[in-house]
Amino acid sequence: MDNKKVALTLTLGALNEAVDTECRVAITPESAQRLIKAGIQPCIEAGAGMKAGFQDADYEAVGVKILSKQDILGKSNAVAYISVPDNKTISSQSKGSFAVGLFASLLNKDIAAQFESAGITALDIALLPRKLSKAQSMDLMTSQASVAGYKAVLLAANEYPAFLPMMTTAAGTIKPASVLILGAGIAGLQAIGTAKRLGSVVTAYDVRPASKDEVLSLGAKFLDLAAFGGPDLSAGQGEGGYARELTNEEKAAQQAAVDKAAATFDIIITTAQVPGRKPPVLLTKAGVDNLKRGSVIVDVAASSLGGNVEGSKPEETVITPNGVKIIGAPNLPSTAPKTASNLLARNIADIISYFVSEGNFEVQEGDELSVLAISGKKVPSQKEAK
Amino acid sequence: MDNKKVALTLTLGALNEAVDTECRVAITPESAQRLIKAGIQPCIEAGAGMKAGFQDADYEAVGVKILSKQDILGKSNAVAYISVPDNKTISSQSKGSFAVGLFASLLNKDIAAQFESAGITALDIALLPRKLSKAQSMDLMTSQASVAGYKAVLLAANEYPAFLPMMTTAAGTIKPASVLILGAGIAGLQAIGTAKRLGSVVTAYDVRPASKDEVLSLGAKFLDLAAFGGPDLSAGQGEGGYARELTNEEKAAQQAAVDKAAATFDIIITTAQVPGRKPPVLLTKAGVDNLKRGSVIVDVAASSLGGNVEGSKPEETVITPNGVKIIGAPNLPSTAPKTASNLLARNIADIISYFVSEGNFEVQEGDELSVLAISGKKVPSQKEAK
Repeated sequence: MDNKKVALTLTLGALNEAVDTECRVAITPESAQRLIKAGIQPCIEAGAGMKAGFQDADYEAVGVKILSKQDILGKSNAVAYISVPDNKTISSQSKGSFAVGLFASLLNKDIAAQFESAGITALDIALLPRKLSKAQSMDLMTSQASVAGYKAVLLAANEYPAFLPMMTTAAGTIKPASVLILGAGIAGLQAIGTAKRLGSVVTAYDVRPASKDEVLSLGAKFLDLAAFGGPDLSAGQGEGGYARELTNEEKAAQQAAVDKAAATFDIIITTAQVPGRKPPVLLTKAGVDNLKRGSVIVDVAASSLGGNVEGSKPEETVITPNGVKIIGAPNLPSTAPKTASNLLARNIADIISYFVSEGNFEVQEGDELSVLAISGKKVPSQKEAK
Repeated sequence: MDNKKVALTLTLGALNEAVDTECRVAITPESAQRLIKAGIQPCIEAGAGMKAGFQDADYEAVGVKILSKQDILGKSNAVAYISVPDNKTISSQSKGSFAVGLFASLLNKDIAAQFESAGITALDIALLPRKLSKAQSMDLMTSQASVAGYKAVLLAANEYPAFLPMMTTAAGTIKPASVLILGAGIAGLQAIGTAKRLGSVVTAYDVRPASKDEVLSLGAKFLDLAAFGGPDLSAGQGEGGYARELTNEEKAAQQAAVDKAAATFDIIITTAQVPGRKPPVLLTKAGVDNLKRGSVIVDVAASSLGGNVEGSKPEETVITPNGVKIIGAPNLPSTAPKTASNLLARNIADIISYFVSEGNFEVQEGDELSVLAISGKKVPSQKEAK
């Protein structure tokens, strides 16, 4: 990095998040330094970092300006959001300015129109082309999924009535807990690592054939569905290693085998989320009913549309009649707000810096990252943005 | 072990614990099998194992009798307790029977007299000669301290707003949390192991000179007080490697150095408990005031008499004006009730089995474990015990 003094011609603001349970903040004292190097003046609303553990003084010490909400919305060249802003907030942003955040534009069809009519260029991070090499350091979904996978295991371990590791004492041995991770994406892989750290015996499953090698490389077992009467999916594998579409009968047999296998585990973590869609069911009521008393499930995908586990409820712990705890935990990153904020604020700093062009924020027509823009897309002049 | 059918001439009972927050149970389905092998018929009050995850049917399947509270107290040859029973319970026990549990007889001077006047031989496990080789499998203080050390770290990790392990992402690295364990007895050593499992950087301290090698052998650092202006204690070490009594000035200098050192850590776990005495203060208010915002303290010794940390309160989380969480967690074993119960029930089974002699419970005059008896001590005949 280059340490020359850069003129701070642009501003990025962050507010106290509108949702009370949201503890993260979109600019941290650490990400502020990245922004300043890129020529962007970071500004926050007073107290915006408190719930994540950052005081206003920590921000001021690294050159962040503390402003009122009104000033941030009315005067910033760009505003970073974590929870989706309401229309009132959007229309208070200055015309021609940028907005960056997870706007769930695939599910929330109105949001693009709201930004558009307010004259704002909104960058929805959910649209990031994640396989693009230059997008790696911007990948907020990945960084937050890592935090979620880690916290899901800690939460389960804390609620589980026994030890995760094996324990040998003078009076005999306590055997380790067996943990099943359903969904081996970023959150699932981090959950595997954390559950292994804690000494449990870990098995994982994912419908993507490629995930098997990743699971094995972390030292976990891959769930063998055939042992539970499941279909032999390898025989029917499609071209190029991709899974072919399963028939409805095969899908039902697969689900029945997962439900049956689940009963052999003490802790189950489910992590399958699909941007812009209802999460897939990975464990049905029949599977939950088979579990041992005292088992703990953490459903990271729990949502108002339903989660990976039948019967899970977002932000609630359901105890079934057979004594199984189902914890619906859709916003785990907010429960480790300092790490989660540091990671996402870096991602946001890298995204917004990418769009700096000759002292302005600008989406270049045809650029690989122009797909993030769900509104505006026009090049605002310095004057329009003020 | 010998698999011959043994005549079950004696009975040991366990009740629903009197304290609502106590989730452990003194007989588990697993310990029941040990008892039966030793010729003891295990009996529980209906539902006694529920909070620990054991159903009445689990007990019945291994030959445990489900009885009323009245029958257990009135007809058992011995009753096992976890929380200290009240006088009404004690006087409901049949004359000549045994009681086994942690009766805190060093602090609670009345308890021995209550058992004595009810004609009961009470064995206080807190008096176990812990260095005795044959007492190892009976050491309930050790087994429960292990659970407490493990859960203390999980609790802290769950409350701490950042990651414990180091994390490397495309957007940069998150450094690991630094954890300080004050008190390196059984709970402290288990806490060191668990904090290391979770990838944090662990330092420990204990006033006993011998603990340094144990700490280092677990891969943790031993806190160097001299680096924080503390006294050089090694120079003044007494004969035989034991610490000599420190002068008041040395003690004050030692405390000041610990308080100063504490500020360099993110998580602090304190575990120093002395049977029958008020826990020593290991971290003063000045030390707590120096900590970073977002730091988490778990005081395993928190009690109504005070804990290891000034300002801690049992079963409460205190948030200081400088944003430090002090969690008073004196009964952590009860938060992992299944493992804790399995361990302590084994200990209790081994203790009570030890006192079986020719079809009776009996304390032998002069026996090394006769020191456990705080009342009775006379040899009850089979008839008296019924």
